[in-house]
Amino acid sequence: MKFTIGVDYGTNSVRAILVRTSDGREIGTAVVQYPSGREGVLLDPADHNLARQHPGDYLVGLEESIRGAIAQASAFQGFAPDRIVGIGVDTTGSSPLPVDAACTPLALLPRWKGHLAAQCWLWKDHTSHEEAAAITAAAVRLRPQYIAKCGNTYSSEWFWSKIWHCLNTAPEVFDAAHSWVELSDYIPAVLAGVTRPEDVRRGVCAAGHKAMYSAEWQGLPDAEFLAALHPKLAELRPRLYDVAYDASHTAGTLCEAWAEKLGVPAGIPIAIGEMDVHYGAIACGVTEGTLVKVMGTSTCDCAVVPVGSAVADIPGICGIVNGSILPGHYGIEAGQSAVGDIFKWWAEVVCQGDSRLHAQLTAEAAAQRPGEHGLLALDWNNGNRTILVNPRLTGLLLGQTLYTSRADVYRALVEATAFGARAIIERIREYGVRIDRVVCAGGIAEKNAVLMQIYADITGCTMQVAGSSQACALGSAISAAVVAGEHADFASAQASMASIKDIVYAPKPENARTYDKLYAIYRELHDAFGGVNKAADLSSVMRRLIEIKTAATTPAAQAEPRSPSRPPAEADLAPA
Amino acid sequence: MKFTIGVDYGTNSVRAILVRTSDGREIGTAVVQYPSGREGVLLDPADHNLARQHPGDYLVGLEESIRGAIAQASAFQGFAPDRIVGIGVDTTGSSPLPVDAACTPLALLPRWKGHLAAQCWLWKDHTSHEEAAAITAAAVRLRPQYIAKCGNTYSSEWFWSKIWHCLNTAPEVFDAAHSWVELSDYIPAVLAGVTRPEDVRRGVCAAGHKAMYSAEWQGLPDAEFLAALHPKLAELRPRLYDVAYDASHTAGTLCEAWAEKLGVPAGIPIAIGEMDVHYGAIACGVTEGTLVKVMGTSTCDCAVVPVGSAVADIPGICGIVNGSILPGHYGIEAGQSAVGDIFKWWAEVVCQGDSRLHAQLTAEAAAQRPGEHGLLALDWNNGNRTILVNPRLTGLLLGQTLYTSRADVYRALVEATAFGARAIIERIREYGVRIDRVVCAGGIAEKNAVLMQIYADITGCTMQVAGSSQACALGSAISAAVVAGEHADFASAQASMASIKDIVYAPKPENARTYDKLYAIYRELHDAFGGVNKAADLSSVMRRLIEIKTAATTPAAQAEPRSPSRPPAEADLAPA
Repeated sequence: MKFTIGVDYGTNSVRAILVRTSDGREIGTAVVQYPSGREGVLLDPADHNLARQHPGDYLVGLEESIRGAIAQASAFQGFAPDRIVGIGVDTTGSSPLPVDAACTPLALLPRWKGHLAAQCWLWKDHTSHEEAAAITAAAVRLRPQYIAKCGNTYSSEWFWSKIWHCLNTAPEVFDAAHSWVELSDYIPAVLAGVTRPEDVRRGVCAAGHKAMYSAEWQGLPDAEFLAALHPKLAELRPRLYDVAYDASHTAGTLCEAWAEKLGVPAGIPIAIGEMDVHYGAIACGVTEGTLVKVMGTSTCDCAVVPVGSAVADIPGICGIVNGSILPGHYGIEAGQSAVGDIFKWWAEVVCQGDSRLHAQLTAEAAAQRPGEHGLLALDWNNGNRTILVNPRLTGLLLGQTLYTSRADVYRALVEATAFGARAIIERIREYGVRIDRVVCAGGIAEKNAVLMQIYADITGCTMQVAGSSQACALGSAISAAVVAGEHADFASAQASMASIKDIVYAPKPENARTYDKLYAIYRELHDAFGGVNKAADLSSVMRRLIEIKTAATTPAAQAEPRSPSRPPAEADLAPA
Repeated sequence: MKFTIGVDYGTNSVRAILVRTSDGREIGTAVVQYPSGREGVLLDPADHNLARQHPGDYLVGLEESIRGAIAQASAFQGFAPDRIVGIGVDTTGSSPLPVDAACTPLALLPRWKGHLAAQCWLWKDHTSHEEAAAITAAAVRLRPQYIAKCGNTYSSEWFWSKIWHCLNTAPEVFDAAHSWVELSDYIPAVLAGVTRPEDVRRGVCAAGHKAMYSAEWQGLPDAEFLAALHPKLAELRPRLYDVAYDASHTAGTLCEAWAEKLGVPAGIPIAIGEMDVHYGAIACGVTEGTLVKVMGTSTCDCAVVPVGSAVADIPGICGIVNGSILPGHYGIEAGQSAVGDIFKWWAEVVCQGDSRLHAQLTAEAAAQRPGEHGLLALDWNNGNRTILVNPRLTGLLLGQTLYTSRADVYRALVEATAFGARAIIERIREYGVRIDRVVCAGGIAEKNAVLMQIYADITGCTMQVAGSSQACALGSAISAAVVAGEHADFASAQASMASIKDIVYAPKPENARTYDKLYAIYRELHDAFGGVNKAADLSSVMRRLIEIKTAATTPAAQAEPRSPSRPPAEADLAPA
């Protein structure tokens, strides 16, 4: 009996699980909340686009979560730590962090510890929207192939936008950084005892989806292109990487120091790091024809197509990358910038309730028929990742009367995210990729049958739920089992270790008919405010509001007298 | 020392005040809440457009409020009931009620008491939107002059729409009605002891603004036009009225029965009834160049232009009527369908707070700079009365992020109503009517300095506040003082009895600059969703949502099984 560890770095916490390689059975798990910031995220009260994380939290969490999972597993008959044969890691992304020449994150050095730019730039940091727009414009002009596979739009959430924004706004940090490492590459490198950035084995998942890496053009964007953005980005390029690897490779083997810390055999293989959802898709049994949606604060959608198939570039999709999910397959990634976060905003920020209020609003919403509340919302409170790729879009709620209840709005927001999901599915299908069923993972999918039925009714797809509550961590453990040689390949590992729950949410035709009408309205608003419909173009509206907001909150404006009602800075780091 | 009584019928209660005719000093007041329905309004849980009132509440309220005001005034040195020389009445409108041949409201007869169609059709009842559209269409085709003075659009809130809707949906009530009387005419008639509908002195205020009455075409719409709507409306016409009167006339004199009930001298004159805001405008010192805004659940705006001036028809305005406010002046009426109601919806329905929450949200909103919340709302939760005249428009909120607070939205909703106010002011000015200053009346104006400053900043107008907290009732008392001969005319009565508070809200240029940008966005959305901008036309969006909602809540849909979570019917009448 052999076991592997899967470690999943989320937005607010890290989780480790221990699973049996023969059948994927989970025998131990532990979660560690990041101690810094607000729920693990460093914020800037003056700029809601900013979201950073302290790398020290990752190391504390790595040790504590794995030790916790092992401790829990020790009661399991047949388990012993020396039967652990591999470790896999997945993380959020693109979450790059600046490191020095010893591969130490700058934020772990006393000099930089308190500097927000020296932290890990969390996936949902949108401060670099201007740089993203400039990269898109430069690529359209100079290297259209670089962004053809990521929807022709480079995102503010991604690697180069963030590094360039650091260079533009905190050049002292940029200059102090020897290299930049994705979190999904950094953690495996820590476990492998890597002490030089050039020895970090980079995964093709983050590289291909977030950093415009492709074997087609021998690696990252070329120096000439980077120099056109900024000469210092071209200078950085040789200190990054030339090759990135899929999950058929290892990131290295467990070093003595971490083996001792964790009580795990040294020398066991460490799987290549992938982004959370990509490994989660593996645990949901992703194969051609299955769309995996990992639903949490935001949603990430994954599909695969065997290499050798004709795959067109799909506008607005986050990327089509060879090997980013499964070796031998193109990985297709899409996503919604906010899903659970929108429900949380409504129930907790606006209605100031807690999890019980979510349950109550869900129950009230469940009593309604489609269309009964008269509302329509756009799911853009955190921008739109797919298919508009525009972080500067904002939320919209329409149709409210003097009688509109909080449950009405809650249901409308659930529907809005389902409409967003449908827009993604339709876009992928338009370009010839099969989607026969949707498998969802994450707490929302497991707990909220009302939402799942709404998703089925709106998308017209059969919805299923992952067998594991920890699909991302399980996918990491599956990848570890493959590189440990416990399974011949991913297909056989998935057959043994992945699972799907029995419950199936099928679309109800009478609901689908109403939702088709509502989706038509959603698309009308989506296209008008998203700038797709040039005839009824309201695409400047949300941007202009943000510009006015920015002007109202610039330092110059803040110099004027005002009431002292601002919240205190929440960027305080937890004690090391 | 002489005194008059002013009685003001609001949406939820009736108030009587006793004032000294020499200086308008208020020496007694009493308020009576209507006992029936929810806060005095009879509702239909299946149709949010419905709003009725039980006429019995009016009579109970008339007696109790006047007696209460007199009781309070009895402590005042120099007052005695026999020094009361006149009574004036104002009410909401258009609030027509069906009466029998003895001028008894049908709803006071046992047979009809429980029938919603037999009650008073409250101003904010929007059930007759289809009839309103049909009247507009017929008038455009057959009698454009009938609606040229009311913005070329006949409203679902008005007299003929409501009567026709009664005919279409409750023909038994229509057939049982000998005539229909506006509430503002009914109460003075009750005081005068009128026992036949043909003896009711109708005021030109409701007649001209709500019933397409004009001396130009010898009264109400002609029988041929009404027959084109429905033959039974033409048959009703002779049982209505041919002449309507301005406030230089009386509605009659106090009858013995009511004199005895009230303890007031019989035979004193009763002023012609006007709608609340029109008399309120008089108490705010309305003259050429002053716009009076009476702000409450909704807002009504009044201005006057001397008869003899060239006054164009103003599209989207509720009416331009000779004598509707002041004798010898055209009265111009406009209005916003919901103002205080929108703040109440947010703070009480969504945030489930009370008046303290209003105060807290106002304080938090006050700490913000214009534009800082990044939001923009349309103030259409109850439709748009002026300038779009479309009750089937609904609310819109745009710009929300995951951090948008309830105070952010509260401020955005206040601003939305101010943008709506600006749209009205701009429309009136476009057609050559002077507006030099705005005088506001009502609790919101008195209590909410933050809102008043926002209104000044957004409209660019100096904002002032009425001297009396009971401007409408005071205006009624002023009119009573004129017909009682205590003042030679309205100008001298206003000079003695009307007043304005010392505080002046002047626009702040730096705020106005930001608000000009936000107003441009408001207009862009207003014009797109309101159907003004035919290029970027989203005007069908809100209507289609209402149609889908209606389909989801029709009896056929309700026959399907559903959860039993509907509220109970709230149309129960208070005991007689």
